[in-house]
Amino acid sequence: MDVFDAIMARRDVRNEFSGEVIDDATLMRLLRAAHSAPSVGNTQPWDFIVVQDRGTLSEFAEHVATCRTDFAESLPDDRRDTFNPIVVQGIESSGTGVVVTYDPSRGGPHILGRHTVDETGHLSVALAIQNLWLAATAEGIGVGWVSFYHQDVVRELVGVPDGLDVVAWLCVGPVTELQRVPDLERFGWRDRRPLSDAVHRERFASLDVVGHANQAGPN
Amino acid sequence: MDVFDAIMARRDVRNEFSGEVIDDATLMRLLRAAHSAPSVGNTQPWDFIVVQDRGTLSEFAEHVATCRTDFAESLPDDRRDTFNPIVVQGIESSGTGVVVTYDPSRGGPHILGRHTVDETGHLSVALAIQNLWLAATAEGIGVGWVSFYHQDVVRELVGVPDGLDVVAWLCVGPVTELQRVPDLERFGWRDRRPLSDAVHRERFASLDVVGHANQAGPN
Repeated sequence: MDVFDAIMARRDVRNEFSGEVIDDATLMRLLRAAHSAPSVGNTQPWDFIVVQDRGTLSEFAEHVATCRTDFAESLPDDRRDTFNPIVVQGIESSGTGVVVTYDPSRGGPHILGRHTVDETGHLSVALAIQNLWLAATAEGIGVGWVSFYHQDVVRELVGVPDGLDVVAWLCVGPVTELQRVPDLERFGWRDRRPLSDAVHRERFASLDVVGHANQAGPN
Repeated sequence: MDVFDAIMARRDVRNEFSGEVIDDATLMRLLRAAHSAPSVGNTQPWDFIVVQDRGTLSEFAEHVATCRTDFAESLPDDRRDTFNPIVVQGIESSGTGVVVTYDPSRGGPHILGRHTVDETGHLSVALAIQNLWLAATAEGIGVGWVSFYHQDVVRELVGVPDGLDVVAWLCVGPVTELQRVPDLERFGWRDRRPLSDAVHRERFASLDVVGHANQAGPN
Protein backbone atom coordinates (compact mmCIF):
# COMPACT_ATOMS: atom_id res chain seq x y z
CA MET A 1 0.00 0.00 0.00
CA ASP A 2 1.17 3.50 -0.85
CA VAL A 3 2.50 5.55 2.08
CA PHE A 4 0.02 8.40 1.65
CA ASP A 5 -2.89 5.97 1.29
CA ALA A 6 -1.87 4.19 4.49
CA ILE A 7 -1.53 7.51 6.34
CA MET A 8 -5.06 8.51 5.31
CA ALA A 9 -6.67 5.06 5.83
CA ARG A 10 -5.14 4.45 9.28
CA ARG A 11 -7.63 4.57 12.15
CA ASP A 12 -7.45 4.11 15.90
CA VAL A 13 -9.52 0.94 16.08
CA ARG A 14 -11.83 -0.13 18.90
CA ASN A 15 -14.97 -1.66 17.35
CA GLU A 16 -13.90 -3.28 14.10
CA PHE A 17 -11.72 -6.20 15.23
CA SER A 18 -12.94 -9.37 13.51
CA GLY A 19 -12.21 -11.72 16.41
CA GLU A 20 -9.50 -13.58 14.50
CA VAL A 21 -5.99 -13.48 15.93
CA ILE A 22 -3.16 -12.07 13.82
CA ASP A 23 -0.83 -14.74 12.41
CA ASP A 24 2.71 -14.71 13.69
CA ALA A 25 4.43 -13.96 10.38
CA THR A 26 2.36 -10.80 9.91
CA LEU A 27 2.90 -9.78 13.52
CA MET A 28 6.66 -10.11 13.11
CA ARG A 29 6.56 -7.95 9.96
CA LEU A 30 4.80 -5.25 11.97
CA LEU A 31 7.32 -5.52 14.80
CA ARG A 32 10.17 -5.34 12.31
CA ALA A 33 8.62 -2.18 10.88
CA ALA A 34 8.46 -0.72 14.39
CA HIS A 35 12.04 -1.76 15.09
CA SER A 36 13.19 0.04 11.91
CA ALA A 37 12.17 3.44 13.28
CA PRO A 38 14.70 6.17 13.92
CA SER A 39 15.75 6.71 17.52
CA VAL A 40 17.83 9.27 19.31
CA GLY A 41 21.48 8.23 19.26
CA ASN A 42 20.35 5.01 17.54
CA THR A 43 19.46 3.72 21.01
CA GLN A 44 16.40 1.73 19.86
CA PRO A 45 15.09 2.10 23.41
CA TRP A 46 11.87 0.15 22.84
CA ASP A 47 10.74 -3.37 23.73
CA PHE A 48 7.57 -5.13 22.63
CA ILE A 49 5.71 -7.60 24.81
CA VAL A 50 3.22 -9.64 22.80
CA VAL A 51 0.28 -10.62 25.00
CA GLN A 52 -2.17 -13.24 23.73
CA ASP A 53 -3.05 -15.06 26.93
CA ARG A 54 -6.83 -14.73 27.30
CA GLY A 55 -6.59 -14.41 31.07
CA THR A 56 -4.12 -11.52 30.84
CA LEU A 57 -6.19 -9.73 28.21
CA SER A 58 -9.31 -10.11 30.30
CA GLU A 59 -7.59 -8.86 33.45
CA PHE A 60 -6.29 -5.78 31.64
CA ALA A 61 -9.70 -5.10 30.06
CA GLU A 62 -11.25 -5.05 33.55
CA HIS A 63 -8.69 -2.53 34.72
CA VAL A 64 -9.31 -0.31 31.70
CA ALA A 65 -13.05 -0.43 32.33
CA THR A 66 -12.43 0.99 35.81
CA CYS A 67 -10.29 3.82 34.42
CA ARG A 68 -12.97 4.55 31.86
CA THR A 69 -15.54 4.95 34.62
CA ASP A 70 -13.21 7.25 36.56
CA PHE A 71 -12.82 9.46 33.49
CA ALA A 72 -16.57 9.52 32.81
CA GLU A 73 -17.20 10.61 36.38
CA SER A 74 -14.71 13.47 36.03
CA LEU A 75 -16.63 14.99 33.10
CA PRO A 76 -19.28 17.73 33.08
CA ASP A 77 -22.74 16.31 32.24
CA ASP A 78 -22.82 17.32 28.57
CA ARG A 79 -19.37 15.89 27.89
CA ARG A 80 -20.25 12.69 29.76
CA ASP A 81 -23.26 12.21 27.49
CA THR A 82 -21.00 12.59 24.45
CA PHE A 83 -18.40 10.27 25.93
CA ASN A 84 -20.70 7.44 27.05
CA PRO A 85 -21.21 5.71 23.68
CA ILE A 86 -17.49 5.87 22.79
CA VAL A 87 -15.64 2.56 23.08
CA VAL A 88 -12.12 3.11 24.41
CA GLN A 89 -10.54 -0.30 23.83
CA GLY A 90 -10.61 -3.57 21.91
CA ILE A 91 -8.32 -5.50 24.22
CA GLU A 92 -10.11 -8.83 24.07
CA SER A 93 -11.69 -8.57 20.61
CA SER A 94 -8.31 -7.83 18.99
CA GLY A 95 -6.85 -11.01 20.50
CA THR A 96 -3.37 -9.49 20.81
CA GLY A 97 -1.89 -6.77 22.97
CA VAL A 98 1.50 -5.30 22.21
CA VAL A 99 2.88 -3.54 25.25
CA VAL A 100 5.54 -1.04 24.24
CA THR A 101 8.16 0.01 26.78
CA TYR A 102 10.96 2.58 26.98
CA ASP A 103 14.36 1.89 28.51
CA PRO A 104 16.05 5.23 29.35
CA SER A 105 19.32 3.44 30.20
CA ARG A 106 19.71 1.86 26.75
CA GLY A 107 22.84 3.28 25.15
CA GLY A 108 24.60 4.14 28.38
CA PRO A 109 25.22 7.56 29.91
CA HIS A 110 26.19 9.50 26.75
CA ILE A 111 23.25 9.54 24.35
CA LEU A 112 23.98 11.44 21.16
CA GLY A 113 21.05 13.84 20.80
CA ARG A 114 19.57 13.36 24.28
CA HIS A 115 22.22 15.58 25.89
CA THR A 116 20.06 18.67 25.37
CA VAL A 117 16.54 17.26 24.92
CA ASP A 118 16.04 14.27 27.18
CA GLU A 119 12.48 13.57 26.03
CA THR A 120 13.73 12.49 22.59
CA GLY A 121 14.19 9.03 24.13
CA HIS A 122 10.51 8.72 24.88
CA LEU A 123 9.53 10.26 21.56
CA SER A 124 11.64 7.69 19.70
CA VAL A 125 9.32 5.01 21.02
CA ALA A 126 6.33 6.81 19.51
CA LEU A 127 8.08 6.85 16.12
CA ALA A 128 8.31 3.06 16.33
CA ILE A 129 4.63 2.85 17.20
CA GLN A 130 3.65 4.92 14.18
CA ASN A 131 5.74 2.68 11.91
CA LEU A 132 3.88 -0.33 13.29
CA TRP A 133 0.54 1.42 12.86
CA LEU A 134 1.08 2.27 9.19
CA ALA A 135 2.54 -1.15 8.38
CA ALA A 136 -0.51 -2.71 10.03
CA THR A 137 -2.84 -0.58 7.91
CA ALA A 138 -1.09 -1.86 4.79
CA GLU A 139 -1.58 -5.45 6.01
CA GLY A 140 -5.29 -5.05 6.77
CA ILE A 141 -4.57 -5.13 10.49
CA GLY A 142 -6.16 -2.67 12.90
CA VAL A 143 -4.36 -1.01 15.80
CA GLY A 144 -5.92 0.74 18.77
CA TRP A 145 -3.76 2.59 21.30
CA VAL A 146 -5.20 2.21 24.79
CA SER A 147 -4.16 4.76 27.40
CA PHE A 148 -6.88 4.25 30.01
CA TYR A 149 -4.62 2.45 32.47
CA HIS A 150 -2.32 2.97 35.38
CA GLN A 151 1.26 2.17 34.50
CA ASP A 152 1.87 0.11 37.64
CA VAL A 153 -0.95 -2.25 36.74
CA VAL A 154 0.53 -3.02 33.32
CA ARG A 155 4.01 -3.28 34.84
CA GLU A 156 2.83 -5.94 37.24
CA LEU A 157 0.66 -7.75 34.68
CA VAL A 158 3.43 -8.37 32.13
CA GLY A 159 6.51 -8.10 34.34
CA VAL A 160 8.06 -4.86 33.11
CA PRO A 161 11.35 -4.39 35.00
CA ASP A 162 11.96 -1.41 37.25
CA GLY A 163 13.57 1.44 35.37
CA LEU A 164 11.60 0.88 32.18
CA ASP A 165 8.51 2.93 31.37
CA VAL A 166 5.31 1.51 29.91
CA VAL A 167 4.57 3.70 26.88
CA ALA A 168 1.53 2.08 25.28
CA TRP A 169 -0.79 -0.88 25.10
CA LEU A 170 -1.65 -1.51 21.47
CA CYS A 171 -4.59 -3.72 20.51
CA VAL A 172 -3.53 -5.40 17.26
CA GLY A 173 -5.73 -7.63 15.14
CA PRO A 174 -7.51 -8.29 11.85
CA VAL A 175 -10.43 -5.94 11.17
CA THR A 176 -13.65 -6.20 9.19
CA GLU A 177 -13.19 -2.61 7.96
CA LEU A 178 -11.57 0.67 8.90
CA GLN A 179 -13.86 3.63 9.58
CA ARG A 180 -13.40 6.53 7.19
CA VAL A 181 -13.95 9.14 9.90
CA PRO A 182 -12.17 8.86 13.28
CA ASP A 183 -14.46 7.69 16.09
CA LEU A 184 -13.99 10.87 18.12
CA GLU A 185 -15.20 12.94 15.16
CA ARG A 186 -18.08 10.55 14.37
CA PHE A 187 -19.30 10.66 17.96
CA GLY A 188 -18.98 14.43 18.21
CA TRP A 189 -16.19 14.42 20.80
CA ARG A 190 -13.75 16.59 18.87
CA ASP A 191 -13.45 17.75 15.25
CA ARG A 192 -10.41 17.98 13.04
CA ARG A 193 -8.52 21.25 13.07
CA PRO A 194 -7.88 22.87 9.68
CA LEU A 195 -4.32 22.33 8.51
CA SER A 196 -3.99 26.04 7.79
CA ASP A 197 -4.36 26.78 11.51
CA ALA A 198 -1.46 24.45 12.30
CA VAL A 199 1.03 25.81 9.76
CA HIS A 200 2.99 29.00 10.44
CA ARG A 201 5.66 30.78 8.41
CA GLU A 202 8.98 31.92 9.89
CA ARG A 203 7.42 32.68 13.27
CA PHE A 204 4.53 31.29 15.27
CA ALA A 205 1.36 33.20 14.45
CA SER A 206 -0.54 33.46 17.71
CA LEU A 207 -4.29 32.92 17.88
CA ASP A 208 -5.17 36.57 17.48
CA VAL A 209 -3.68 36.54 14.00
CA VAL A 210 -5.22 33.24 12.85
CA GLY A 211 -6.30 33.71 9.28
CA HIS A 212 -2.97 35.38 8.70
CA ALA A 213 -1.08 32.25 9.60
CA ASN A 214 0.83 32.36 6.35
CA GLN A 215 2.34 35.72 7.14
CA ALA A 216 5.36 36.13 9.31
CA GLY A 217 3.49 37.45 12.31
CA PRO A 218 4.68 39.75 15.06
CA ASN A 219 4.04 36.70 17.31
CA MET B 1 6.03 4.26 -2.54
CA ASP B 2 5.02 1.17 -0.59
CA VAL B 3 4.77 1.64 3.19
CA PHE B 4 7.32 -1.05 4.04
CA ASP B 5 9.75 0.25 1.43
CA ALA B 6 9.47 3.76 2.85
CA ILE B 7 9.99 2.47 6.40
CA MET B 8 13.18 0.69 5.34
CA ALA B 9 14.51 3.47 3.06
CA ARG B 10 13.92 6.31 5.55
CA ARG B 11 17.10 7.82 7.01
CA ASP B 12 17.90 10.59 9.46
CA VAL B 13 19.61 12.90 6.98
CA ARG B 14 22.49 15.29 7.69
CA ASN B 15 24.90 15.14 4.74
CA GLU B 16 22.83 14.39 1.67
CA PHE B 17 20.77 17.56 1.19
CA SER B 18 21.15 18.73 -2.41
CA GLY B 19 20.99 22.44 -1.64
CA GLU B 20 17.69 22.92 -3.46
CA VAL B 21 14.74 24.14 -1.42
CA ILE B 22 11.60 21.98 -1.27
CA ASP B 23 8.72 23.34 -3.35
CA ASP B 24 5.68 24.52 -1.45
CA ALA B 25 3.21 21.99 -2.88
CA THR B 26 5.38 19.09 -1.75
CA LEU B 27 5.95 20.68 1.64
CA MET B 28 2.21 21.06 2.16
CA ARG B 29 1.66 17.38 1.26
CA LEU B 30 4.17 16.44 3.96
CA LEU B 31 2.51 18.72 6.50
CA ARG B 32 -0.91 17.28 5.60
CA ALA B 33 0.51 13.79 6.18
CA ALA B 34 1.77 14.92 9.60
CA HIS B 35 -1.57 16.53 10.41
CA SER B 36 -3.34 13.22 9.59
CA ALA B 37 -1.65 11.42 12.50
CA PRO B 38 -3.61 10.01 15.38
CA SER B 39 -3.59 12.03 18.61
CA VAL B 40 -4.83 11.45 22.09
CA GLY B 41 -8.45 12.57 22.39
CA ASN B 42 -8.17 13.80 18.77
CA THR B 43 -6.49 16.91 20.20
CA GLN B 44 -4.08 17.38 17.26
CA PRO B 45 -1.82 19.25 19.68
CA TRP B 46 0.90 20.04 17.13
CA ASP B 47 1.88 23.16 15.21
CA PHE B 48 4.44 23.47 12.43
CA ILE B 49 6.56 26.57 11.90
CA VAL B 50 8.18 26.56 8.47
CA VAL B 51 11.50 28.42 8.63
CA GLN B 52 13.23 29.34 5.37
CA ASP B 53 14.75 32.69 6.25
CA ARG B 54 18.50 32.29 5.72
CA GLY B 55 19.34 34.48 8.68
CA THR B 56 17.20 32.41 11.04
CA LEU B 57 18.64 29.13 9.74
CA SER B 58 22.16 30.46 10.14
CA GLU B 59 21.50 31.69 13.66
CA PHE B 60 20.08 28.32 14.69
CA ALA B 61 22.98 26.46 13.08
CA GLU B 62 25.43 28.50 15.18
CA HIS B 63 23.54 27.61 18.35
CA VAL B 64 23.54 23.91 17.44
CA ALA B 65 27.28 24.02 16.80
CA THR B 66 27.78 25.24 20.36
CA CYS B 67 25.64 22.42 21.78
CA ARG B 68 27.57 19.94 19.67
CA THR B 69 30.83 21.15 21.20
CA ASP B 70 29.35 20.87 24.70
CA PHE B 71 28.37 17.26 24.03
CA ALA B 72 31.78 16.40 22.56
CA GLU B 73 33.46 17.80 25.66
CA SER B 74 31.27 15.65 27.91
CA LEU B 75 32.48 12.43 26.27
CA PRO B 76 35.27 10.06 27.29
CA ASP B 77 38.21 10.24 24.82
CA ASP B 78 37.38 7.11 22.82
CA ARG B 79 33.76 8.13 22.35
CA ARG B 80 34.79 11.66 21.42
CA ASP B 81 37.00 10.26 18.66
CA THR B 82 34.06 8.25 17.33
CA PHE B 83 31.73 11.24 17.61
CA ASN B 84 33.95 13.86 15.97
CA PRO B 85 33.33 12.96 12.30
CA ILE B 86 29.55 12.65 12.78
CA VAL B 87 27.54 15.53 11.38
CA VAL B 88 24.58 16.34 13.64
CA GLN B 89 22.56 18.72 11.47
CA GLY B 90 21.77 19.95 7.97
CA ILE B 91 20.03 23.14 9.02
CA GLU B 92 21.37 25.40 6.28
CA SER B 93 21.96 22.81 3.54
CA SER B 94 18.35 21.55 3.77
CA GLY B 95 17.05 25.10 3.20
CA THR B 96 13.96 24.50 5.36
CA GLY B 97 13.40 23.96 9.05
CA VAL B 98 10.10 22.70 10.37
CA VAL B 99 9.79 23.47 14.06
CA VAL B 100 7.22 21.19 15.66
CA THR B 101 5.52 22.28 18.86
CA TYR B 102 3.16 20.75 21.42
CA ASP B 103 0.25 22.61 23.00
CA PRO B 104 -0.81 20.78 26.20
CA SER B 105 -3.87 23.02 26.56
CA ARG B 106 -5.35 22.04 23.20
CA GLY B 107 -8.65 20.25 23.79
CA GLY B 108 -9.40 21.85 27.15
CA PRO B 109 -9.18 20.30 30.61
CA HIS B 110 -10.80 16.90 29.86
CA ILE B 111 -8.64 15.02 27.36
CA LEU B 112 -10.00 11.61 26.50
CA GLY B 113 -7.06 9.26 26.98
CA ARG B 114 -4.74 11.70 28.77
CA HIS B 115 -6.59 11.33 32.06
CA THR B 116 -4.36 8.42 33.09
CA VAL B 117 -1.27 8.84 30.88
CA ASP B 118 -0.48 12.52 30.45
CA GLU B 119 2.55 11.95 28.20
CA THR B 120 0.30 10.70 25.39
CA GLY B 121 -0.06 14.34 24.40
CA HIS B 122 3.64 14.69 23.74
CA LEU B 123 3.82 11.29 22.09
CA SER B 124 1.04 12.25 19.67
CA VAL B 125 3.35 14.91 18.26
CA ALA B 126 5.98 12.26 17.53
CA LEU B 127 3.39 10.24 15.60
CA ALA B 128 2.83 13.27 13.38
CA ILE B 129 6.58 13.61 12.87
CA GLN B 130 6.90 10.00 11.75
CA ASN B 131 4.04 10.47 9.26
CA LEU B 132 5.90 13.45 7.82
CA TRP B 133 9.16 11.49 7.72
CA LEU B 134 7.73 8.55 5.79
CA ALA B 135 5.76 10.77 3.41
CA ALA B 136 8.98 12.71 2.75
CA THR B 137 10.84 9.50 1.97
CA ALA B 138 8.19 8.64 -0.61
CA GLU B 139 8.62 12.09 -2.17
CA GLY B 140 12.42 11.90 -2.38
CA ILE B 141 12.74 14.43 0.44
CA GLY B 142 15.16 13.94 3.31
CA VAL B 143 14.40 14.73 6.94
CA GLY B 144 16.88 15.16 9.78
CA TRP B 145 15.68 15.60 13.35
CA VAL B 146 17.98 17.98 15.21
CA SER B 147 17.94 17.82 19.01
CA PHE B 148 21.21 19.61 19.81
CA TYR B 149 19.54 22.80 21.03
CA HIS B 150 18.18 24.49 24.08
CA GLN B 151 14.45 24.90 23.91
CA ASP B 152 14.49 28.54 24.99
CA VAL B 153 16.72 29.48 22.07
CA VAL B 154 14.27 28.00 19.54
CA ARG B 155 11.34 29.53 21.39
CA GLU B 156 12.86 32.99 21.08
CA LEU B 157 14.05 32.48 17.51
CA VAL B 158 10.65 31.61 16.04
CA GLY B 159 8.33 33.13 18.63
CA VAL B 160 6.85 30.03 20.25
CA PRO B 161 4.26 31.24 22.80
CA ASP B 162 4.58 30.49 26.50
CA GLY B 163 2.83 27.26 27.43
CA LEU B 164 3.79 25.45 24.23
CA ASP B 165 6.73 23.05 24.12
CA VAL B 166 9.25 22.87 21.30
CA VAL B 167 9.36 19.17 20.34
CA ALA B 168 11.68 19.08 17.31
CA TRP B 169 13.54 20.98 14.66
CA LEU B 170 13.29 19.02 11.42
CA CYS B 171 15.63 19.79 8.51
CA VAL B 172 13.56 19.09 5.39
CA GLY B 173 14.86 19.20 1.84
CA PRO B 174 15.60 17.40 -1.43
CA VAL B 175 18.44 14.89 -1.21
CA THR B 176 20.97 13.48 -3.67
CA GLU B 177 20.55 10.02 -2.12
CA LEU B 178 19.59 8.28 1.10
CA GLN B 179 22.27 6.24 2.87
CA ARG B 180 21.46 2.55 3.14
CA VAL B 181 22.99 2.25 6.60
CA PRO B 182 22.17 4.81 9.33
CA ASP B 183 25.00 7.27 9.98
CA LEU B 184 25.44 6.21 13.59
CA GLU B 185 26.02 2.62 12.48
CA ARG B 186 28.30 3.63 9.59
CA PHE B 187 30.46 5.73 11.91
CA GLY B 188 30.59 3.06 14.59
CA TRP B 189 28.65 5.02 17.19
CA ARG B 190 26.02 2.37 17.87
CA ASP B 191 24.84 -0.78 16.10
CA ARG B 192 21.36 -2.07 15.48
CA ARG B 193 19.91 -4.36 18.13
CA PRO B 194 18.54 -7.69 16.91
CA LEU B 195 14.75 -7.67 16.69
CA SER B 196 14.63 -10.93 18.65
CA ASP B 197 16.07 -9.12 21.69
CA ALA B 198 13.27 -6.56 21.56
CA VAL B 199 10.34 -8.98 21.30
CA HIS B 200 8.97 -10.76 24.36
CA ARG B 201 6.04 -13.15 24.78
CA GLU B 202 3.37 -12.73 27.46
CA ARG B 203 5.87 -11.30 29.96
CA PHE B 204 9.05 -9.25 29.71
CA ALA B 205 12.06 -11.53 29.47
CA SER B 206 14.78 -9.84 31.48
CA LEU B 207 18.36 -9.65 30.31
CA ASP B 208 19.47 -12.80 32.09
CA VAL B 209 17.15 -14.82 29.91
CA VAL B 210 18.05 -13.16 26.60
CA GLY B 211 18.24 -15.88 24.02
CA HIS B 212 15.02 -17.24 25.48
CA ALA B 213 13.15 -14.08 24.67
CA ASN B 214 10.45 -16.01 22.86
CA GLN B 215 9.53 -18.02 25.94
CA ALA B 216 7.22 -16.73 28.58
CA GLY B 217 9.91 -16.00 31.13
CA PRO B 218 9.70 -15.89 34.89
CA ASN B 219 10.34 -12.17 34.38
